[in-house]
Amino acid sequence: MKKLGIVTSGGDAPGMNAAIRALVRLSAWNNLEVIGFLRGWEGIIKNNFIPLNARAVSGILHLGGTILKTSRCLEFKTREGLEKAAKNIEENDLDGLIVIGGEGSVRGAYELSKLTDVKIAVLPASIDNDVYGTDETIGFDTAVNTALTEINKIRDTAISHERTFIVEVMGRKRGFLAVEVGLTAGAEVILVPEVEYDEKAVLETIRKNASIGKNSSIIVIAEGVGKTTSLAVAIEKNVGVEVRVSVLGYVQRGGSPTARSRYLASIFAAKAIESLLDGKSGIVVGIQKSEVTSISLEESCSNEKPLNIELLKLAEKLAI
Amino acid sequence: MKKLGIVTSGGDAPGMNAAIRALVRLSAWNNLEVIGFLRGWEGIIKNNFIPLNARAVSGILHLGGTILKTSRCLEFKTREGLEKAAKNIEENDLDGLIVIGGEGSVRGAYELSKLTDVKIAVLPASIDNDVYGTDETIGFDTAVNTALTEINKIRDTAISHERTFIVEVMGRKRGFLAVEVGLTAGAEVILVPEVEYDEKAVLETIRKNASIGKNSSIIVIAEGVGKTTSLAVAIEKNVGVEVRVSVLGYVQRGGSPTARSRYLASIFAAKAIESLLDGKSGIVVGIQKSEVTSISLEESCSNEKPLNIELLKLAEKLAI
Amino acid sequence: MKKLGIVTSGGDAPGMNAAIRALVRLSAWNNLEVIGFLRGWEGIIKNNFIPLNARAVSGILHLGGTILKTSRCLEFKTREGLEKAAKNIEENDLDGLIVIGGEGSVRGAYELSKLTDVKIAVLPASIDNDVYGTDETIGFDTAVNTALTEINKIRDTAISHERTFIVEVMGRKRGFLAVEVGLTAGAEVILVPEVEYDEKAVLETIRKNASIGKNSSIIVIAEGVGKTTSLAVAIEKNVGVEVRVSVLGYVQRGGSPTARSRYLASIFAAKAIESLLDGKSGIVVGIQKSEVTSISLEESCSNEKPLNIELLKLAEKLAI
Amino acid sequence: MKKLGIVTSGGDAPGMNAAIRALVRLSAWNNLEVIGFLRGWEGIIKNNFIPLNARAVSGILHLGGTILKTSRCLEFKTREGLEKAAKNIEENDLDGLIVIGGEGSVRGAYELSKLTDVKIAVLPASIDNDVYGTDETIGFDTAVNTALTEINKIRDTAISHERTFIVEVMGRKRGFLAVEVGLTAGAEVILVPEVEYDEKAVLETIRKNASIGKNSSIIVIAEGVGKTTSLAVAIEKNVGVEVRVSVLGYVQRGGSPTARSRYLASIFAAKAIESLLDGKSGIVVGIQKSEVTSISLEESCSNEKPLNIELLKLAEKLAI
Repeated sequence: MKKLGIVTSGGDAPGMNAAIRALVRLSAWNNLEVIGFLRGWEGIIKNNFIPLNARAVSGILHLGGTILKTSRCLEFKTREGLEKAAKNIEENDLDGLIVIGGEGSVRGAYELSKLTDVKIAVLPASIDNDVYGTDETIGFDTAVNTALTEINKIRDTAISHERTFIVEVMGRKRGFLAVEVGLTAGAEVILVPEVEYDEKAVLETIRKNASIGKNSSIIVIAEGVGKTTSLAVAIEKNVGVEVRVSVLGYVQRGGSPTARSRYLASIFAAKAIESLLDGKSGIVVGIQKSEVTSISLEESCSNEKPLNIELLKLAEKLAI
Repeated sequence: MKKLGIVTSGGDAPGMNAAIRALVRLSAWNNLEVIGFLRGWEGIIKNNFIPLNARAVSGILHLGGTILKTSRCLEFKTREGLEKAAKNIEENDLDGLIVIGGEGSVRGAYELSKLTDVKIAVLPASIDNDVYGTDETIGFDTAVNTALTEINKIRDTAISHERTFIVEVMGRKRGFLAVEVGLTAGAEVILVPEVEYDEKAVLETIRKNASIGKNSSIIVIAEGVGKTTSLAVAIEKNVGVEVRVSVLGYVQRGGSPTARSRYLASIFAAKAIESLLDGKSGIVVGIQKSEVTSISLEESCSNEKPLNIELLKLAEKLAI
Repeated sequence: MKKLGIVTSGGDAPGMNAAIRALVRLSAWNNLEVIGFLRGWEGIIKNNFIPLNARAVSGILHLGGTILKTSRCLEFKTREGLEKAAKNIEENDLDGLIVIGGEGSVRGAYELSKLTDVKIAVLPASIDNDVYGTDETIGFDTAVNTALTEINKIRDTAISHERTFIVEVMGRKRGFLAVEVGLTAGAEVILVPEVEYDEKAVLETIRKNASIGKNSSIIVIAEGVGKTTSLAVAIEKNVGVEVRVSVLGYVQRGGSPTARSRYLASIFAAKAIESLLDGKSGIVVGIQKSEVTSISLEESCSNEKPLNIELLKLAEKLAI
Repeated sequence: MKKLGIVTSGGDAPGMNAAIRALVRLSAWNNLEVIGFLRGWEGIIKNNFIPLNARAVSGILHLGGTILKTSRCLEFKTREGLEKAAKNIEENDLDGLIVIGGEGSVRGAYELSKLTDVKIAVLPASIDNDVYGTDETIGFDTAVNTALTEINKIRDTAISHERTFIVEVMGRKRGFLAVEVGLTAGAEVILVPEVEYDEKAVLETIRKNASIGKNSSIIVIAEGVGKTTSLAVAIEKNVGVEVRVSVLGYVQRGGSPTARSRYLASIFAAKAIESLLDGKSGIVVGIQKSEVTSISLEESCSNEKPLNIELLKLAEKLAI
């Protein structure tokens, strides 16, 4: 191992910069040269990169976003795009490529790994926490805390006006963020894509709350449930309480990473460098039951990470 | 003066509780009995109130929202509603009524003042900063800082993905919040209801930025401009950059008040109590050129607070 | 099981209120009556308590500190004090007592358990993370993030003035907080009680940093190392750089709990209630390798939780 | 006017970077070349500077500290140092020099102005708010809010443990920060250098609070009062309540500037550029009664900014 490429791909997540810093500095300890591709897969296809040394990653640990930038890259989903990417990482004499990103990045890395012998490892980083093979992704804890802070502010108005608020959090396919936020914010109702939508049950809960004098409720709903507006209408019409909707949106992606997101970035980076040096390839590193682990890209791609439904039940009990 | 009523009305604003605390405690120093009407004007109409003493307002200084709650009250906009309210404040033997709220509350207080001899004073509290007679309202500084924090987070993603973000802030009729947020967040474009909407100029700015390599821009737009979605479409179509929209929404109303919002609450409360004790009535207290002042409700109602257009020009110069 | 007592003991930690709320509400689901003793062990000895029902713990989830208050109680360390406490929990017809606190509270609970048949469980809550039997305590994650935020601010001045800052974090005997904070803040040096103090090595690191142009460094030191002042003097004298000391102090104990501290409070509470209902007693609940577990009070008291020294090495590598 | 120098001097304050950005960008609009001296006066004496253009100040608006760095410079207090500085600004063909700093920087600028014809203006930036000629300095509002946030956290522990906390804030000679923080944090006692220290009165207040059941109090004391430790001892001994001391320290200097600190930086910069272009020199810009103004360096140096003692009385009344 002499030369390493790094790329951040897909949606940005807080802690990606902490991961870049850790990878570059641990590479320095192992005398590895490092380059960083710009704008995700696009940078590999266009061979657009910058050199990265220990000084270049100074002062980035606490920054949200990614200094390597990221983008959606449709070309990478084509055979031609993948082949160009494979060709470029080889022509740059890379021995290893480390991809920092979410579930889509794992799939991309897997496809790329079929076309090249360059060793590939993925550091799971996503506010959605949707990567199979790790209990938690870099950035997830930050997003949860950001959403929590927002809901604390919204609750001020909810209580003062005695309104029900529907707060939509990110999560197109998965409800990890919604569950964690809902449980820790004390939301009265949590709605996720993994559980069949039951409007009647929600109405019943809000009605019951109103009947015992709880005039303000918070409903946390994952974007992917797709019922935010219709539910607001239904509650106003059927329960007769005032409802407001708040879509948290992009603030959930940004901000300085929490300690935990930085910690995961650090230990994942150490595992990835160590694994590549040990000759491993085609892996996703992660944390499972507090152990730093790695599984194959294939295994990660062919499994879906289960949501802990027990937490939903616990949240429901706690929000009486 | 022996007995005082307090009410919070209209949209909640951070610092309303600081104002309640200050009013109650300064009343205690002047041996005034205090009651707090619940849920805004509705509480006066329904004669729904609680006693408030110095201990009752302990531990509320740092809380967002209002412990007296607030609501929209259509009945108060009718002659019957106003008369019921006037009757109730008199039958409670009130010598004074202090209303904490925004522009709508000033209007309500003015109408009520025509029907009763009870002395009335308004403490301007609104995240919109729209009350004529004060340079700044309680809650405005907090809302500005909240929006600023949100935009800082959004900028992480804007830069990482090289996107243009349109950030919609509150302000149906007035652009005070948008200007202050836009200037201090370094927004590339600021759009307010007071200035005629010029889509072409915005497109030109975004295009020029792209041409000099500024691939991410922030556009701050006041809700009342009403062009958030159409502008996003126009930019994507005409300039060819990726655009995302973020509506900050209700988080702008909540949160612990900043020092400045608490400071205004304190000095406004002192002025209101002092004014009523001096026999004044029908006033809005405020701060003008750093002096604590008061003007008549009538004057406040019949004037519109001007927006400082110079700040827009300054913001534009600074965001090159 | 019909009646439960709850007490918070020792230093307060963010998330204690989240734990109280969870315990009370889960008790309600199991038809358990709950009382809360005031001011820690002192409240049990003096039989000073309040009833707690589901409504009484409303609105406390996000609050730092403990609504049950806490105190140091020397009397509880005497045989007489323990006997009074044992007598009181029995005379209140308690079936179970749940103690929320740190290492000292585990010891206290263990001593008490020898004198009574009332079932006792401990929820580990401490910013020091020093309880054997759980990988993490309630409040630890919050304290880490608070200290991180402080160091971010201090770094602004450190860089602007090109100074070395020695930041003292809490931890009289243990370095968990210092390690986690130091690693995630990118501290150049981390000093903990568990590792022998080597002033020469610290001087060497600061000197080397200065020689490569890193003119500002952060040294995170646990209070228990006891060398904060002498180290500052030694660096100024021997390396010739400006040094400033910042003792973070009590801010580390306070503040709204992070999502993770609230999450642990919730799952620990569920485990404690379930365990007592199952007839278990004399236990500390906790999380080990992501599983919610419990061990005996005796085992927790007779072992010392090991510090992960590997993290110190990783932090050192990352801070070049 | 063709060429401008900028320097940040004395203790760093949040918003200095916002001021640098505004100065550089407004200079660009006026076709002025700009250089930035490094490390305060030292940079002028050593002729150590960097060119600054509109792109160079991109992305710094929200950063605490100063990208130009700052330092204490004893040499500048000597005749030789001043002469070297005067010579360098002339040999660099500067037409104007803008100094960003506090009271000491105003004095330095005044001394320097006696030795050169280069036009000099000061932008008052200091967390101490101690510059005569402006109602508020850049950075003051940020420091107040930072201290407020800290005290909110400390109050959690103060209440939970029923302790009195003495919180020491910055301010060697002046009590502006202490008064504003104390008033808005609801401190029970505020101690500033401008008011004679009266230990007996403090003890009386704490005793009275304890007698009405207020078992936790916050005392805000400015560093310059110099009685932090002795007061703690006196209260413990004479009133018999537990006391803890928290010295907020350097965190008060750092952090992202609040909207208000950024706003002042923007309007002060506009005034300074405009004034120099108008041919003015030897001035401190500022805000007085909401108007952007300027006074002479001499006037600023020969007057002491008065503290508003009325606010202390108001704070006392509110904290019952």
